[in-house]
Amino acid sequence: MRFAKNEIPKSTINRIAKYYAILLQLRSEDKIICTSEDLGRRMSVPSSLVRKDLGNFGEFGTKGVGYRVHYMIWRIEQILGYRAAWNAVIIGSCMPALTLLTASSIFPPGIHIAAVCDLEKDNPGVPVGGGSELATESFANINAIVQQRNIIMGIMAVEQSKSQQVANKLVEAGVTGIANLSSIPVLVPKHILLVEVNIASWLSQITYSLNGIIKNDFLAGKPYIESFS
Amino acid sequence: MRFAKNEIPKSTINRIAKYYAILLQLRSEDKIICTSEDLGRRMSVPSSLVRKDLGNFGEFGTKGVGYRVHYMIWRIEQILGYRAAWNAVIIGSCMPALTLLTASSIFPPGIHIAAVCDLEKDNPGVPVGGGSELATESFANINAIVQQRNIIMGIMAVEQSKSQQVANKLVEAGVTGIANLSSIPVLVPKHILLVEVNIASWLSQITYSLNGIIKNDFLAGKPYIESFS
Repeated sequence: MRFAKNEIPKSTINRIAKYYAILLQLRSEDKIICTSEDLGRRMSVPSSLVRKDLGNFGEFGTKGVGYRVHYMIWRIEQILGYRAAWNAVIIGSCMPALTLLTASSIFPPGIHIAAVCDLEKDNPGVPVGGGSELATESFANINAIVQQRNIIMGIMAVEQSKSQQVANKLVEAGVTGIANLSSIPVLVPKHILLVEVNIASWLSQITYSLNGIIKNDFLAGKPYIESFS
Repeated sequence: MRFAKNEIPKSTINRIAKYYAILLQLRSEDKIICTSEDLGRRMSVPSSLVRKDLGNFGEFGTKGVGYRVHYMIWRIEQILGYRAAWNAVIIGSCMPALTLLTASSIFPPGIHIAAVCDLEKDNPGVPVGGGSELATESFANINAIVQQRNIIMGIMAVEQSKSQQVANKLVEAGVTGIANLSSIPVLVPKHILLVEVNIASWLSQITYSLNGIIKNDFLAGKPYIESFS
């Protein structure tokens, strides 16, 4: 959980990644200059926060003019490690999910999927498809996979009961970072960079708020029957 | 962005959803009692934070004994709106993703997928598969879908260039909440409950930290060629 280097909060990094997505959009709209107000408006944050976030990495806007869209894209790619090629292994529990994760653009630039392990059916050699030239490999070989291919990060989308075990094996194999897309948090040693991407926990913000607004608690009258005395 | 009801921070709600996942795991291990230390250890947070988080919703542990696992599960289901049935529509850009989203357990309990729209191929009537009895519907009919089926929430996993447009149509159709799984933030009126689940921004925490630890900035020597003068 300890993210090294310096004191930039995780929430700042998250926002900078989102500024990046917006800047790509602006570039596709042939915009050359944007202001902190433009970015703030598209993110629903104050422009002062945009300037503060970017100010962490030095001044790269021009006062009264704004930020140059192309330069900002390039600069954020440098800051966030997007202009590198971090080799990653995806470990998943079903083939369609592996195909989607490998093919999709949900990961940031800089992450290069170098191996795919199907945890459910341990049948190596199945083409992942979706435009990828990779084929599944056995998770039993994870040590060799990580070491021989300079894999620095594991991306886990496995079922809850196997999450911790998979995380442990990734750590043993020598990865530096783990992204856990499973629904249960995992524990890792302090030197490992861990990110929990827990979709259920995010969507719970909505169900929680709905619960306060709308009366739909139709199960509340049937309290859970506790199976112990 | 305004989450109504009271002052419980979003980060607390996120953690409570994770305690829930851990409690389910403990129940599957036949544990009857757990302590704030148990929960804290499995989450890498201090036990005092666990007690504070849960204390927001009244005392439901017993001092010196701990929390009853089954009761806690039931109580969190009440708090987070998991014991309701919030009808949701999924809007996606490819059929495999729609199938996975519909079939998977990545959403919290309480969210009931009541409709699925395939944005890419507007071909209604294709069975979604993955155990679901739903078939795709045309996004052009979103108003009728939302109103006739009491849909309260839209879950968007669409390409970046269409995100804002889809969000606007969901708002017009009358949803109360939107979960945006696309890589670019969207803007919605203040009365809409919005959650941004931006996987790229989370994984950027890892690429950012790796960038500070490991020299792999092989593209840094080739600065981005700006296409304007």
